[in-house]
Amino acid sequence: MKTSIGPRTVVYPTPVLVVGTYDQSGNPNVMTAAWGGICCSSPPCVAISLREATYTFGNIVERKAFTVSVPSEAYSREADYFGIASGRNVDKFAATGLTPVRSKIVDAPYVGEFPLVLECRLHQAVEIGLHTQFIGEILDVKADESVLGEEGLPDIEKVKPIVYAPEIRTYHGLGKKIGHAYSIGKDIGG
Amino acid sequence: MKTSIGPRTVVYPTPVLVVGTYDQSGNPNVMTAAWGGICCSSPPCVAISLREATYTFGNIVERKAFTVSVPSEAYSREADYFGIASGRNVDKFAATGLTPVRSKIVDAPYVGEFPLVLECRLHQAVEIGLHTQFIGEILDVKADESVLGEEGLPDIEKVKPIVYAPEIRTYHGLGKKIGHAYSIGKDIGG
Repeated sequence: MKTSIGPRTVVYPTPVLVVGTYDQSGNPNVMTAAWGGICCSSPPCVAISLREATYTFGNIVERKAFTVSVPSEAYSREADYFGIASGRNVDKFAATGLTPVRSKIVDAPYVGEFPLVLECRLHQAVEIGLHTQFIGEILDVKADESVLGEEGLPDIEKVKPIVYAPEIRTYHGLGKKIGHAYSIGKDIGG
Repeated sequence: MKTSIGPRTVVYPTPVLVVGTYDQSGNPNVMTAAWGGICCSSPPCVAISLREATYTFGNIVERKAFTVSVPSEAYSREADYFGIASGRNVDKFAATGLTPVRSKIVDAPYVGEFPLVLECRLHQAVEIGLHTQFIGEILDVKADESVLGEEGLPDIEKVKPIVYAPEIRTYHGLGKKIGHAYSIGKDIGG
């Protein structure tokens, strides 16, 4: 039996994405966003939704570039902090001791300690409501060699990403492998 | 040391979302999409990116409505199948034995057996490239009573959603709880 719980922003799993930008003075900033994910295969694009009130919003409008760093579970505290503090008031890299690394291909910094990074050029901005969605074309992905698996691709079990549950506002780790996509269901209806 | 792996569509975690629509004849259809997630808090909206070649694409353009059903881990095979087969050729509900339920508030069906459902009215469509993003305003969320936790909200540990890893194309379960958002990082820099 299903119950109505009203028009809530609840999709599981939701990612924890750390958006890196430079401000007008060239200072590196990061903020955590949960409203986002891949939105196109060709060109490869990732979408990040931000409120206009955030410091990062103005930085992306100005620089037309951003990075998305995926934190591993070991950096849950830092990722949470990046979503609480504002770059207007504090240097979040200095506060956490994490390292801003200047991207060589887009005008934005990423978090050196996080295992997976997307370097993006602004493709388009979509005004929705409280949030504006910034769609970035992924020009390159960088991954720590330690998280690469077979075929040289990032192994999610080595990346150990954080899973976010909106509304109840909890963070979770990754569970056990279930199986392969485009495979475990192919015998149905056959 | 980070390695460049090229412009790939890789963000962890990525969700497994089952999009429900009616076709021109009023037949219920579902397809699985991984490119999507919440994209605005007010109005509450969810984005789903689809290729124009999909059957669902035309259905949403026609009906201006869709649902998003979140499968639990127990339905991994069915969710995978929904992403392999096309509603042009087969009745995916019949093939899986799952139940199409007509939404009472939008012109679209959802999967009765899946624990969490978003009922959406098309808000806007954004052409990006190979994929077009359909942004739906969430008019209501329905959840099985068995997955509700404290405060009457869906408990992610009861929903047991599937985590998808693009590029390596594997499904994973949910891991252990790490802590509370807007909480575990608040002492940093304090």
